[in-house]
Amino acid sequence: MIQRPRGTRDFGPDEMEARRHLESLMRAEAETFGFREISTPIFEHAELFTLKSGPNILAEMYAFLDKGGREITLRPELTAPAIRFFVNELAELPRPLKIFYTGPCFRYERPQSGRFREFYQFGAELIGVQNPESDAEVIALAASIMDRIGLKGHRIRVGHIGILRDKLKAKGVSAEAVPVILQKLDKKLYDEAEPLMRQAGMDARSIEETKRITEMSGSVSVLEGFGGEAKSYLEEVFTVLEASRVENLQIDLGVIRGLDYYTGIVFEIDVPKLGAEKQVCGGGSYSLSELFGGEKVFSTGFAIGFDRTLIALAKEGFEAPKRRVEVHVVPVGDVSRSKAFEITAMLRKEGIRADVDLMRRNLAKNLKYADSIGARRAVILGEKELGLGAVTVRDMVSGEQSTIPIGDLPGYIKSTRDFGV
Amino acid sequence: MIQRPRGTRDFGPDEMEARRHLESLMRAEAETFGFREISTPIFEHAELFTLKSGPNILAEMYAFLDKGGREITLRPELTAPAIRFFVNELAELPRPLKIFYTGPCFRYERPQSGRFREFYQFGAELIGVQNPESDAEVIALAASIMDRIGLKGHRIRVGHIGILRDKLKAKGVSAEAVPVILQKLDKKLYDEAEPLMRQAGMDARSIEETKRITEMSGSVSVLEGFGGEAKSYLEEVFTVLEASRVENLQIDLGVIRGLDYYTGIVFEIDVPKLGAEKQVCGGGSYSLSELFGGEKVFSTGFAIGFDRTLIALAKEGFEAPKRRVEVHVVPVGDVSRSKAFEITAMLRKEGIRADVDLMRRNLAKNLKYADSIGARRAVILGEKELGLGAVTVRDMVSGEQSTIPIGDLPGYIKSTRDFGV
Repeated sequence: MIQRPRGTRDFGPDEMEARRHLESLMRAEAETFGFREISTPIFEHAELFTLKSGPNILAEMYAFLDKGGREITLRPELTAPAIRFFVNELAELPRPLKIFYTGPCFRYERPQSGRFREFYQFGAELIGVQNPESDAEVIALAASIMDRIGLKGHRIRVGHIGILRDKLKAKGVSAEAVPVILQKLDKKLYDEAEPLMRQAGMDARSIEETKRITEMSGSVSVLEGFGGEAKSYLEEVFTVLEASRVENLQIDLGVIRGLDYYTGIVFEIDVPKLGAEKQVCGGGSYSLSELFGGEKVFSTGFAIGFDRTLIALAKEGFEAPKRRVEVHVVPVGDVSRSKAFEITAMLRKEGIRADVDLMRRNLAKNLKYADSIGARRAVILGEKELGLGAVTVRDMVSGEQSTIPIGDLPGYIKSTRDFGV
Repeated sequence: MIQRPRGTRDFGPDEMEARRHLESLMRAEAETFGFREISTPIFEHAELFTLKSGPNILAEMYAFLDKGGREITLRPELTAPAIRFFVNELAELPRPLKIFYTGPCFRYERPQSGRFREFYQFGAELIGVQNPESDAEVIALAASIMDRIGLKGHRIRVGHIGILRDKLKAKGVSAEAVPVILQKLDKKLYDEAEPLMRQAGMDARSIEETKRITEMSGSVSVLEGFGGEAKSYLEEVFTVLEASRVENLQIDLGVIRGLDYYTGIVFEIDVPKLGAEKQVCGGGSYSLSELFGGEKVFSTGFAIGFDRTLIALAKEGFEAPKRRVEVHVVPVGDVSRSKAFEITAMLRKEGIRADVDLMRRNLAKNLKYADSIGARRAVILGEKELGLGAVTVRDMVSGEQSTIPIGDLPGYIKSTRDFGV
């Protein structure tokens, strides 16, 4: 047997049904917010991601030289490609530009529970503006997507990178040291952050205060006692989010999101019951386009981890609507197979999901097959009934049988639909 | 600027709207036939494709060594991964197993018109049976997909690889020489096929007859004068296809489909107006699973070239339904922005695609923006109307304005929908 590559997955029919269902809900919700879909290639020049995330990311990417000697990589995420596309071709579109995208991304790391080498993201970017309303709009979209797919046990934690940055700067920390310290604080690695803060000239009390900030979370009232632009900005974001009826929302000043390019609000959605792999969405406001040769343009965006979101939903008992075959058509005895194909084609043209005996099986085996594929009904073509222009319809759940004139068959099937179409 | 890699494409919102529309029609039609979706990884072990297509394919693939030294390749097509998945994990499912899939594939070749390094396929496989009905079922699905998406100027050419194989074998051509000669005949390279046939021991008359066969096309009557199993099999396939009301259908014994693994019927769908790039679908019955370590199982399948199909549709004037924003919400004067977000959230919860001013623009600029994004209506929040619990709805096409009570707004928008939702 040839195995699929390590860390990748195949998805069978039941899994794909759930994945496509989820994807279509996310897409529909993004469109409800006026976002429109784009798509970028599976691979990019490696430079795109090292510019955004630094050379260290090379070690975590599927990077390779193509036959022309160019350094190519399977995309590790979708924001950089979206902004590259924006800079190169979409910069003239009306602003704000609202886009979303979905697809596989790749990282080279040891495969482990919930982390695959090929994983799926759904993301959105609002490009060309940065103010409390536009940031709130993006958070509201992420929140609405979680509502639309039916996730319940999640919380949306919103912070502002400026509050900690301002604090560190006010205490004399150099511009170079700020991101290094923030990365440690982001991961709550206080043991590593403390000596860095001391080195940067902070006293014990400032260090303690800084640590305390990263642990502040709750309602907007946690912002009391802070001053400055970042605080009032965050308050305005919450005013809009509350007007938009966004729920499961909290301030969390410990949301820092490591990367240097965030410029203002940052947010994460997590599902505590998932444990260590609890984060299902992360985002914030940033500015990347100037890195890729464009003018400086502010954006706010997020990425949802599609796989983890599905795991979270499954833990809550989510089941995608089944889209099984509605009828399995079975010719019996001397009835011509052509007649079965004629009737099957007629049902399909009416939009009814129909299967037909392709194995020349007898009635009993056909009913067993119909059952095994979850067909709702069997349409049985017997010689006697056909002579009268009718067929037998068997309910595969109750076993009840009815004789239905062929002309009435599509209407009968449609009017007695009792499961997802 | 960082360019996207050569031979790849970015798709903007309008293109994606068309692509997703087409994809969802194809998916729905496959489901109507009782096929269910699967998905396999973007990259595979290179061996999977060299086993199927021979070592020459390596030169045409994006193959690379991963960090563990394994030979990995971006998938050049989707049949081999589907059959690998079947052998490894789906072999126990009820048969016939009907699956379909869609996604990007990759080939390393000079980019040229209509041929990209990253291209998209939609395909289906019916696994576990080979008889005229099952072959007809697969051809009927391909045909129905073309009908469902609205393609008109196409023809479905069906042949049987057995007719030429039998002919060559009957004339004493060795088993090794048969596929070499067939590959030349497939491409109508008679100058190269002739010496091979002479070498293989065929006389001038047999060579002439063989060439004539590859040029025979038309109704089932072209099969008159042939004998043998392949002929009667093909006739049976056509009986089922005619019962299924498949149109644009012809016999074409020149359809050979190069690859060695085809076992019976072969078919292509082409759109003559596309010229050299006219083929939009190719398929046939084959047996691959034993190559990948499974039992021998017959299958019939096809792959549709998604990109070319879209080009063909565009040439016929196809336009995807527009899914633009239905309303753009605009607060005017001293009206609070919060009120705008409250109303926008209410409309979105009702499933109405709604945008809202995020740039703090004045009314004139907001109307210009609404127009530029193709919004159907503007919902204008004026202080006076809001005081009376109402808003102004402006038709962005006619310019007409109506005053609508806020509570009636979702119903008003929905009841006056006049374009795709």
